[in-house]
Amino acid sequence: MRVDILTLFPEMFEGVFQSSILNKAHQSGAFDYNYVNFRNYTENKHNKVDDYPYGGGAGMVLTPQPIFDAVEDLTTKMEKEPRIVLMCPQGEPYTQKKALELAKEEHLVFICGHYEGYDERIRQHLVTDEISIGDYVLTGGELGAMVVIDSVVRLLPGVLGNESSAPEDSFSQGLLEHPHYTRPADFRGMKVPEVLMSGNHAKIEEWRQRESLKRTFDRRKDLLKDYPFSDKQLEWLKSFTES
Amino acid sequence: MRVDILTLFPEMFEGVFQSSILNKAHQSGAFDYNYVNFRNYTENKHNKVDDYPYGGGAGMVLTPQPIFDAVEDLTTKMEKEPRIVLMCPQGEPYTQKKALELAKEEHLVFICGHYEGYDERIRQHLVTDEISIGDYVLTGGELGAMVVIDSVVRLLPGVLGNESSAPEDSFSQGLLEHPHYTRPADFRGMKVPEVLMSGNHAKIEEWRQRESLKRTFDRRKDLLKDYPFSDKQLEWLKSFTES
Repeated sequence: MRVDILTLFPEMFEGVFQSSILNKAHQSGAFDYNYVNFRNYTENKHNKVDDYPYGGGAGMVLTPQPIFDAVEDLTTKMEKEPRIVLMCPQGEPYTQKKALELAKEEHLVFICGHYEGYDERIRQHLVTDEISIGDYVLTGGELGAMVVIDSVVRLLPGVLGNESSAPEDSFSQGLLEHPHYTRPADFRGMKVPEVLMSGNHAKIEEWRQRESLKRTFDRRKDLLKDYPFSDKQLEWLKSFTES
Repeated sequence: MRVDILTLFPEMFEGVFQSSILNKAHQSGAFDYNYVNFRNYTENKHNKVDDYPYGGGAGMVLTPQPIFDAVEDLTTKMEKEPRIVLMCPQGEPYTQKKALELAKEEHLVFICGHYEGYDERIRQHLVTDEISIGDYVLTGGELGAMVVIDSVVRLLPGVLGNESSAPEDSFSQGLLEHPHYTRPADFRGMKVPEVLMSGNHAKIEEWRQRESLKRTFDRRKDLLKDYPFSDKQLEWLKSFTES
């Protein structure tokens, strides 16, 4: 997968891209990235990328010209149209389903603004996707782009290897993960549940499934709305509401 | 505000903390940070921080001992108990409201796991908050911690200055932001709405409020659920459903 990132702050990405899974994915060739500082595409003599908003008000707005030109410079060389993703709080709320969708693409372009808003014409006439990583306000789009890139790259074939198994993660199954325990069995008097040390694999599996449903029920009822419950799960749900 | 970060990958944070607003906040003294590599607190001879899960299964689990000891080493020196935040997909979904709450604290401690799950006893007996930045799976807690820290630090007094005005951002008012436009008025035939160039401030304000509601209605009906609509807004909503 090739990723191009339009940003005024390319140095923000380095620590993240040079660590851990993203670094390995880059080394193995599964993932390649390139920064485009769109200030280099400005046509005014002070290299300004933003200007005052029409209609007045606080804050600056990113002008369309450098961003259109930078994106077109990338895409005219390509045979296939890339997905062009604008990181912004008004975007579609990002989910694991979207990560799986983006992981099928060969080329992603991210547009990251900073401080300012985007001129509306960028949204309407240039981008294919507007993504928000959550309902909170960040200083810029860079952290959002890193979040999307991390979640997508770890899904690419061969990237995770034996280090972790993507399908067992939270959300892959639509429920939160069950609790995990490791050594010691007794840590300052806090003990591991006996079932996990019983050696009875069927019982352990049942405990985990029940705890996964219980945790989702306790914390995130919203995730259960369209969940295809089994008979066993419906029985457990009934026991949660009765207790 | 003081922030301590328990992580095995402190180098991931540097690019983000040394750029833009976070760097300025650090320089001005509004925000100070410190990394704690909890591997330094291990008591086993290979400095292992994780171990196999009780009950079997793929993946490793972070053991409680180094994390408890690292947090206690930080907190025993403090007069006031800090908030101890675990970054994890099972946590409370992060919102701007939580950012405002955390911005009132003097001291935050973040625990960032990587690859592995956390031993359940860390959740139950050590942390004060479990936070998820969204319903997607990331390689580790580090990006989540950066997101929370960025959103919190920009709310601290004096940090944003004139660069942006926090109260006008998306979510601060419960609605998505209205469209922004800047120069040129005509970009390749794509024009700025006339009202924004009319100089009529009352009309501009009304246009912005209506577009903000329209965008929220089109994209995020979930945000309107408990919204305290004015009569004017109810009239607009009616016009959206009729068109």
